[in-house]
Amino acid sequence: MNKDSRVRKIEKAAAAALVMPALSADQKATALSSFADRIWRKKDNLLQANARDLNREKKSLPAALLARLKLDEGKIATLCEGIRALANAEDPVHRVIDRIELDQGLVLEKRTVPIGVIAVIFESRPDVIPQILSLILKSGNVALLKGGREARLTNLAFMKIVSELNRELRFLPGAWAQLFIERSDVDLILKQNKLVNLVIPRGSNALVQAIMNKTKIPVLGHADGVCHLYWDESADFATVRRVVIDAKTQYPAVCNAVETLLVHRSRVAELGELLHELDNRGVKIFGDSSVQRLYHATLKKKAGRAGNWHTEYGDLALSVRIVASVSEAIAHINRFGSHHTDGILTRDLKSKQSFLAGVDSATITVNASTRFADGYRFGMGAEVGISTSKIHARGPVGVEGLMTNQFVLVGDGHIVGDYVATNDGEMPARKPVRKFTHRRLI
Amino acid sequence: MNKDSRVRKIEKAAAAALVMPALSADQKATALSSFADRIWRKKDNLLQANARDLNREKKSLPAALLARLKLDEGKIATLCEGIRALANAEDPVHRVIDRIELDQGLVLEKRTVPIGVIAVIFESRPDVIPQILSLILKSGNVALLKGGREARLTNLAFMKIVSELNRELRFLPGAWAQLFIERSDVDLILKQNKLVNLVIPRGSNALVQAIMNKTKIPVLGHADGVCHLYWDESADFATVRRVVIDAKTQYPAVCNAVETLLVHRSRVAELGELLHELDNRGVKIFGDSSVQRLYHATLKKKAGRAGNWHTEYGDLALSVRIVASVSEAIAHINRFGSHHTDGILTRDLKSKQSFLAGVDSATITVNASTRFADGYRFGMGAEVGISTSKIHARGPVGVEGLMTNQFVLVGDGHIVGDYVATNDGEMPARKPVRKFTHRRLI
Repeated sequence: MNKDSRVRKIEKAAAAALVMPALSADQKATALSSFADRIWRKKDNLLQANARDLNREKKSLPAALLARLKLDEGKIATLCEGIRALANAEDPVHRVIDRIELDQGLVLEKRTVPIGVIAVIFESRPDVIPQILSLILKSGNVALLKGGREARLTNLAFMKIVSELNRELRFLPGAWAQLFIERSDVDLILKQNKLVNLVIPRGSNALVQAIMNKTKIPVLGHADGVCHLYWDESADFATVRRVVIDAKTQYPAVCNAVETLLVHRSRVAELGELLHELDNRGVKIFGDSSVQRLYHATLKKKAGRAGNWHTEYGDLALSVRIVASVSEAIAHINRFGSHHTDGILTRDLKSKQSFLAGVDSATITVNASTRFADGYRFGMGAEVGISTSKIHARGPVGVEGLMTNQFVLVGDGHIVGDYVATNDGEMPARKPVRKFTHRRLI
Repeated sequence: MNKDSRVRKIEKAAAAALVMPALSADQKATALSSFADRIWRKKDNLLQANARDLNREKKSLPAALLARLKLDEGKIATLCEGIRALANAEDPVHRVIDRIELDQGLVLEKRTVPIGVIAVIFESRPDVIPQILSLILKSGNVALLKGGREARLTNLAFMKIVSELNRELRFLPGAWAQLFIERSDVDLILKQNKLVNLVIPRGSNALVQAIMNKTKIPVLGHADGVCHLYWDESADFATVRRVVIDAKTQYPAVCNAVETLLVHRSRVAELGELLHELDNRGVKIFGDSSVQRLYHATLKKKAGRAGNWHTEYGDLALSVRIVASVSEAIAHINRFGSHHTDGILTRDLKSKQSFLAGVDSATITVNASTRFADGYRFGMGAEVGISTSKIHARGPVGVEGLMTNQFVLVGDGHIVGDYVATNDGEMPARKPVRKFTHRRLI
């Protein structure tokens, strides 16, 4: 496809984004139910396409990625269940979130509206397409999808279902969901900052970092997850063991797994015991010189030297550092962390309060695993992603991250010249005859 | 000042941003009251410094800008009143906005936290410093200020008061408010996307556009305000007259003044009368050929040719176009507008509904002047700015635009391995023994 025709696809998406907010709750529920039914009816087509993708990639992809790429009937059933649940959920569009009377007969409402054109760029997992498209449809947005080449045929099979849905339900603008195939399409999409309102990258740190570096469009996501646990002087050791082992070993490849353990110097004796247990579970230890000495004294093994406290292992490996106080732990986390998820293990109220006041991260845990930081576990239903950006949406993000606001002011011929001037240097054209009431109605 | 020392100032700001969220409501109230008292006590110093600025600039600045630059006792009194009101207002930091039980003993809170380091770049008006600084302090943020050179001495006099305040109240980190003087400082600040979290430009369109084009830091603001009013077939003519004249002539220099009037073709007869009245008030008309013919027929004068419907006059000038329907008006607004503020004048429910469903702007008005789109008039107390961005904050923005969120999860040794896997391809380490309750507590 040449560049012009690809830009036209994006222009059509922007046009569709002007129509989508007006879809009724019923229309969207109908569309989502039909989408789920069609996916289920076409599951054999999907599985055949997926088998061809798997067969082509089996020699080049590592086993973990092949597992992500693979669809099966169980995964499809779970997908359909999720889409049907969303069909029945409350409509997130045009919810009135604030209402204020500015003056008699002059009422201001703040309501939710969709963001517009959202580009979602993802790797191997083909189930991202139905998941994201159902969220996009429910929220009245428009999607530009760029999937991984590994899942090409499976992705096309899902998009065929979307085309059939569009033909059945004529109220859906055809361009509400479009797939891009080529790697060069990503660069083209990222340049369209007049037409694309938000980019959501789902994939490796390298993918997210590369996208953040080359676009002016706001990006919802996180490049890295260098999460910490601080083992406070007062912590309960049984809690420390449970939580550190869960946070490090339960699924080490994900962004909310812990990468650095900070230990109060008064707990060094028990640290030896914990390091033993981590070693038993195959966790490699990297530490400062005192941790290295302790490790050697306890396990008769050499620990790695923690040269870079920014490291995200994404694997069975852990940096360990001894600190003198909760403030030293906070300073370490704010300096070396990625502001994703950081926790304290403590029984002391003052330590907890200092930690909560001082740590600048999207999620802070207290006596709980960092691995909880996730949209499903946080009860958001579906997760759009986890954001470490400080604006718009931060931490695990559900459908509300796909919404923005709009003010609607309804009057009866009200004019500004009737009111006293604001203090921004303006003057009323004549003597003010009216006053604002600013009465909250919600 | 060399580059290194200026970067160090920004690093100190980032360090101060880690301390500010922990200030108590009482500390902030004390600081704001003392700030107001000090400004009032030092008003003679401020007025003297301002007189020297005015004297230096009187030959180079146009009268309107000189008026903006000028301080007087009345303006200072209003400023102090605003700061004292803010001192007594509710603390916006660490408000719990959501609370959900994930499981017994495992409670998630979503709370407000400051954004961090906020760069405010503004032109002539020196009263921006105390206004913005009081909002920054109340919201627990940190400010990097870059004022116009015209107000240099007045700005320095305000910053001297801030230094005295910092010396009195040792709980304030010295770097919470810093002023930059040189134009080259702006470029330096805009490059620090690791240290600066938000940029708020307050000034001309050219200033805002230039800033948006050269930074990766999120920008809160709007480059242009091409606002529309659509005169629907069903509108009440008296309302049309009042609202159009207010929206165009009450203060034409500002971003929420109307720039284009779209008129339903059935109302052309009365349009002549309105054009007459606008002409009486000194408004120049630019139109398509039918408007030009009408104008000539009615006023025996030549109207300008509206060649570019994107034009923001910021002056007593108005583009006028005849349209065949509300859909044509909506299409014109979405295509040529700046998504700032656009309104409809109508008595027809269906027209109103179509307009509200179709117009993609931060504020939509119905039978009211576009000039109401302003933080003070919208009842937000203080206005940070008006944003046309689709994410974070949209439309007039109050203190809430300076806040972000943080999740706090408090448990008692809770680990993820005890629960069923989420549907993101993860598997639990062992048979799940617990279930999420996801019970909303707020």
